[in-house]
Amino acid sequence: MASVIANMSMSLDGFVADPSDSVDLLFGWYFTGSVPVPTADERLTFQLSDASAKHMRKVQESVGAVICGRRLFDVAGGWGGRHPMGVPAFVVTHEAPRDWNRPDAPITFVTDGVASAVAKAKATAGDKTVAIASADITRQCLDEGLVDAIQVDLVPVLMGEGIRFFDKLSKMPVTLDDPDVVAGTGVLHLYYPVLK
Amino acid sequence: MASVIANMSMSLDGFVADPSDSVDLLFGWYFTGSVPVPTADERLTFQLSDASAKHMRKVQESVGAVICGRRLFDVAGGWGGRHPMGVPAFVVTHEAPRDWNRPDAPITFVTDGVASAVAKAKATAGDKTVAIASADITRQCLDEGLVDAIQVDLVPVLMGEGIRFFDKLSKMPVTLDDPDVVAGTGVLHLYYPVLK
Repeated sequence: MASVIANMSMSLDGFVADPSDSVDLLFGWYFTGSVPVPTADERLTFQLSDASAKHMRKVQESVGAVICGRRLFDVAGGWGGRHPMGVPAFVVTHEAPRDWNRPDAPITFVTDGVASAVAKAKATAGDKTVAIASADITRQCLDEGLVDAIQVDLVPVLMGEGIRFFDKLSKMPVTLDDPDVVAGTGVLHLYYPVLK
Repeated sequence: MASVIANMSMSLDGFVADPSDSVDLLFGWYFTGSVPVPTADERLTFQLSDASAKHMRKVQESVGAVICGRRLFDVAGGWGGRHPMGVPAFVVTHEAPRDWNRPDAPITFVTDGVASAVAKAKATAGDKTVAIASADITRQCLDEGLVDAIQVDLVPVLMGEGIRFFDKLSKMPVTLDDPDVVAGTGVLHLYYPVLK
C-alpha cells in the first residue's frame, strides 16, 4: 500500500511561506545548483546541487500521486493540466471549479475531505508513494493519522513570520523516528517516519 | 574573540518547551544512550549515544562561558553554585537576587542587558565559545546581531504548542550557512553559522 509523505521546504523556524505567500526565501536551493533536473512540466527544470539532484530523482521515481489544496491548484493555473511531478494530482476543495476545461487531465477534484483524497490517491499510486504538498492538508492528515512520513527540506534561514508547516495540530505530540539525512546546498533533506 | 553560539534542543515544529515549561519530550536523548558523559555537576551524568557523546565532549571542551536568563537560574536553584558546563555563567536579570549566598561561585548577574552580558562572557571565554541557553536571550541577541552560530539539537517530535526557540524576531530574515550535521539517536545536532 502506498505510503503517504508530507513534503515541503521549511525554514529552520518552521515557515513554508512568508505572510504574503511568497516562497522566495525557501526555494533558492531548487534553482542555484549546477545539475539540471527536468520535471514533467517542460517549462520547469530544476538546477540542483549534486546531492539534491540525486535525492530529487529518487523522489521523482518514487511518487505515484500528489495531493494538494485548492489554493495551490489555482495559483499554479492547474499546472497546464499536468502536475510537475508527472503523476495524477488530487485537489482537495469544497467545490470543483466550474470553468475547468481539461476533463482529460490527470487531475481529480475531491470534495469529501482529506481521508477520501488519501484513499483515492493511494489507489492510484499503487506501490508508489503519495506526496502531500500543502501545510493545511498535512495538518488535517496528521490529525486523522493518515501521514506515514514527513519529508522536510530544511532551509538555513530564520524567516520570523509567515505560514507554518505544522500549525494548530489537534493530536499532540506526533512522535517521529530519526530521519534519513541528505545534505544539499542551501537545504538539508530530512525524511522522518511517523511512529504510530 | 569568542564565538557566541545559541544552543537548545528543539522539536521539529520549533518548540523548546511545552506550555507548562516541561522539556520531557525534548531531553530524552540526554538520558537514553549507553555512553555516560559526566558534567561539572556530579549529580548529573548524561547517557548518550556514541555520536552524541562525541559531539557533547567537543561542546564541553569548546565552551568557555554560558549566558542564561533569570528563570533558568531560579528553576535550577543556581545549579548549586556551579553550572553543569563547568564554566562561568552570566545570568541576565533585571535585579540580582538578594538572597544569593554564594558570592564566591562563578556566577555573575548582569542587569544592564544582553549586549553587556555577551561582552562580559566573551572576555571571560577568551578563545573559547560563549553558549546561550535561553530562547528569550537568543531572540534579543539575534535582534542585536550578537549571535555567531545556532546549534539546534533537533528532536524528532511535533509538539504542537509550547515555547518557541525563535519567536518575535524583529530583524528578519536571518540568513544561515549550511549546517554541520551529527546524527545522534533521538536527536540531530545541527550547527548553523549565522551569515552577517
